[in-house]
Amino acid sequence: MVPVEPAGAVLEHHAVAVRGGRIEALLPEAEARARFPGREELALDDHLLIPGLVNAHTHAAMTLMRGLADDLPLMRWLRERIWPVEAKHVSPEFVRDGTLLACAEMLRGGITCFNDVYFFPEAALEAALACGMRSAHGIIVFDLPSAYASDPADYLRKGLALRDRYREEPLVSFTLAPHAPYTVSDATFRQVATLAAELDLPVHVHLHETGEEIERSLAEHGVRPMERLRRLGLLGPGLIAAHCVHLAKEEIQLLAHHGCSVVHCPSSNLKLASGFAPVAALMERRVNLALGTDGAASNNRLDLLQEMRTAALLAKAVAGDAQALPAHAALRAATLSGAQALGIGDRTGSIAPGKAADLVALDMRAFGLAPCYDPVSHLVYAAGRENVSHVWVGGALLLQEGKLVSDAFSGLDTRWQLWQNALESRADS
Amino acid sequence: MVPVEPAGAVLEHHAVAVRGGRIEALLPEAEARARFPGREELALDDHLLIPGLVNAHTHAAMTLMRGLADDLPLMRWLRERIWPVEAKHVSPEFVRDGTLLACAEMLRGGITCFNDVYFFPEAALEAALACGMRSAHGIIVFDLPSAYASDPADYLRKGLALRDRYREEPLVSFTLAPHAPYTVSDATFRQVATLAAELDLPVHVHLHETGEEIERSLAEHGVRPMERLRRLGLLGPGLIAAHCVHLAKEEIQLLAHHGCSVVHCPSSNLKLASGFAPVAALMERRVNLALGTDGAASNNRLDLLQEMRTAALLAKAVAGDAQALPAHAALRAATLSGAQALGIGDRTGSIAPGKAADLVALDMRAFGLAPCYDPVSHLVYAAGRENVSHVWVGGALLLQEGKLVSDAFSGLDTRWQLWQNALESRADS
Repeated sequence: MVPVEPAGAVLEHHAVAVRGGRIEALLPEAEARARFPGREELALDDHLLIPGLVNAHTHAAMTLMRGLADDLPLMRWLRERIWPVEAKHVSPEFVRDGTLLACAEMLRGGITCFNDVYFFPEAALEAALACGMRSAHGIIVFDLPSAYASDPADYLRKGLALRDRYREEPLVSFTLAPHAPYTVSDATFRQVATLAAELDLPVHVHLHETGEEIERSLAEHGVRPMERLRRLGLLGPGLIAAHCVHLAKEEIQLLAHHGCSVVHCPSSNLKLASGFAPVAALMERRVNLALGTDGAASNNRLDLLQEMRTAALLAKAVAGDAQALPAHAALRAATLSGAQALGIGDRTGSIAPGKAADLVALDMRAFGLAPCYDPVSHLVYAAGRENVSHVWVGGALLLQEGKLVSDAFSGLDTRWQLWQNALESRADS
Repeated sequence: MVPVEPAGAVLEHHAVAVRGGRIEALLPEAEARARFPGREELALDDHLLIPGLVNAHTHAAMTLMRGLADDLPLMRWLRERIWPVEAKHVSPEFVRDGTLLACAEMLRGGITCFNDVYFFPEAALEAALACGMRSAHGIIVFDLPSAYASDPADYLRKGLALRDRYREEPLVSFTLAPHAPYTVSDATFRQVATLAAELDLPVHVHLHETGEEIERSLAEHGVRPMERLRRLGLLGPGLIAAHCVHLAKEEIQLLAHHGCSVVHCPSSNLKLASGFAPVAALMERRVNLALGTDGAASNNRLDLLQEMRTAALLAKAVAGDAQALPAHAALRAATLSGAQALGIGDRTGSIAPGKAADLVALDMRAFGLAPCYDPVSHLVYAAGRENVSHVWVGGALLLQEGKLVSDAFSGLDTRWQLWQNALESRADS
C-alpha cells in the first residue's frame, strides 16, 4: 500500500478499514482483524493499493471527438476542426454520452475524480454521478456565445444555478472556469475574481499553453497572460492553471508566491507541439503540481497512469537531470496534489483516516511487472491501466477484476456509434 | 487491416491468406472465401490487423533488473548499479530466464521480432526460439572482459560460432555488435568492419546516446564518435545506430548519405535524461528510423506500442511541429523500418504476399477506443498493449485472446522470483 502521505511510505501487509464510505484506519493486517472482527474482508494479496487518481484537467465530453483531427497545432486544431464540430453538435445529450464514455475509460484506468470544463456542465455532472465518480465542474465562461450560453452573464448565471442545485452533493465540487486569456475579456475575468472571493471557489483556467497565446496577449494587452491575470486579481491559492508550458523564471516565482496550482498535461502539450513545461523548476519552487489528461481530442487516451509515466520521464530530459520528478513525486502529483488543487484535499487524494475511500488496486502479477524491487517504480515506469483491477469511490466498488460494475454504461455502445455517424457526416460535408 | 505498405493504406473487410507460415495473399473477404474454399478461417470482425512489431534495440535479459535502479543518469547508472550486478550475476541461466520474461512481455504487447545485444547470446537465442519469436542477436564485442568472454577475439569467436550453428534457422538473424564507442577500441572496430563486409552482417552499436559519450570521444580520439566510426569504415547501409540523441546537422546528413538506420528509443532517452533525438530532421533527410524499447533496466516497460506513441508525441514538440511523425509514419518505424534495419525487410515488417505471417490483431471494442474515426490514429495515440488480442509469428499463433499460448513460460514465475531474491541480497550487501 502506498498511502502517498507520509511521502515515500510503502506499507506491506497492511489493510484499510472502511466504514460508511470513509477510511476508518490503515493498519497491519493482523491488527485489522483483531480490531474489526467479523468485518467483511477483501484480500488482495498480490496487489498494490493506492489512492484514486485525480485527473485535474479534462473536457470529458470530447471523447466523442477522439481522433477526429490529429497532427495539427492548437490554434488551427481549435479553429478549423474542433470549434466547427462543437458549434454544430454539442448539446446536453452529446455532453452526457461523451462524459459517460470518458468515465468508463477513466474508471477502467484508476481515475476516481476528474476536474472538468465543458459546455452544459449539468449533463457532465449528471453523467459522473450516474456512474459514481467524484468530479469537479467548471462554471464555464467565454466571451463568445455557444449553444450553451449567450454571453458571460448567461454562462455565469447558468453555472451558479447548477452549483446551487448540487451544493450538498458530496461527490461534486465546483470551480469558476474562465476558458483562457484569449477567449475571456478583462471585465469577465474581474467578475470571476469577485465571485471566486465571495463564494470561495477555485478558478480553473488554461494558461500559458502556447507561444501564440503569449504573443497575442502581448499584442492585445501589452503584457503576458499571467501578468494580466495578476493585475486582474486572479492569482492566489485557488488558481488552477492548466498547462503552464511557457514560463519565465519570474512567472514560476509568481505562481509559487501566490500558492497557485499548475496542472501539467504532458501528452496534450507534446501532441499539439505546444512545448515542454518546466516541471523540475516548478517542483523546486514547491508549486503544487497536478496532472491532467486534457480532452480526448488533444490527448486521445484518458489515462492518468500514462500521464504520470510521461511526466516522470519527460521532466528528466527537460531538466537534463535523471533524478527530476522521481516515482513518488509523480504519484503525489497524480493524486494528492490534484485533490489539493481542487480544494478537496481533505476529502480525497491519499489513504488517510477520515478521507473518503477513493481507492485503486493494481494486480502486480504480470510478466511485465516482474521482478518487483520497488512497487512505486513499477507503478510509474512499468505498469499500465491494464493492471488496474479494482476501483472504489467513496467506498463503492466501481471496478471489479477489471470489469465496470455500474449499469450507467448500458446502451453506451450504441449511442457513441450514433454520434460517430453524425460527426462523420459533418466531417465529410 | 493496415499493411504498412503501400504507405497510408487502410483496408476494410479484407482477409490474409496464410499457407506454410507465409502470407499467400491479402484480398477482400468475399474474394478470399471464393479463392480459398474450405480453408480454415478465423474471423476477427472488430479488430485491426497490423504487421508484427519489431523492437529494434533491446537487451532482453535485463528484465531481471527491471526497476532495480531508477532516477540516475546513464553513466552513473551503468557504473554504480548495472555493471556491478551484471559482474556478479550474469550467466547463461540468467540470460535464458531474463529473455524468456522479456519474450512473454513483448509477445503480450504485439512484438514479434526483437534485435538483442547481450552477454551469452546463445541463451537469448534459445529462449526466443523456445517461445517461437523472431529475433536478431548481436555478436557482442567489448574491449572489457566479462563472465561471457575474456577479450575481443574471444567475444568474436564465440559469437561467430553461434552464427554458424544457427545460420539455417529462419527465425534467427545476426548482427555484429560492438557495444559502444566508449567500450570498444579502434582495433576492434576495424575488425568488426572487416567481418561485416566479409559476412554481409549488419553492425549494431550504441551511438551518440549522451553528451558525455561525445565529450569523451573528443577528449580521447579528437573527433566525435560518428566521425570516428566513419574513419574506421563503419558507416554504411548495414549500420544500426541505436539512440542517436545528439546529432549535428552534418551528422544527420552523414547518416542519410551512408544509408544508415537509426533506432530511436524515446523512453530510455527521457528516463536517463540523455536528451531528445531529432526525429523530424532524420525523417526529413529520409534516414531509416526504427524504434526500440532498450533494456528493461532503463525503460522498465518493453512495450513498442508505448514507444510508438511516445515517439509520435515527442517528435512533434521537439520539432515544434504538430505534423511531425504522424501516425502512419510512427507505425512504419515500429514495423517495416525495423525489419529493414535488421536486413530482414524481405521476410517481415509488412503484410505482403511472400513474407512470413508475422501478424498482430488488436481488439478495437474498448471504451478507450471509441468512437473510431481513424484506426491508425487510435493505434498510435489511444490503444495500448491491453488491446492486443492475437499474435502470430511465421503463421504460428503465440497469443490468443490476450493469453500466451506457449508452454515455454511455465515455471518462469518461480524462477524470476529466485533471481529477484539473489539480486536483492546483492543490492543490500
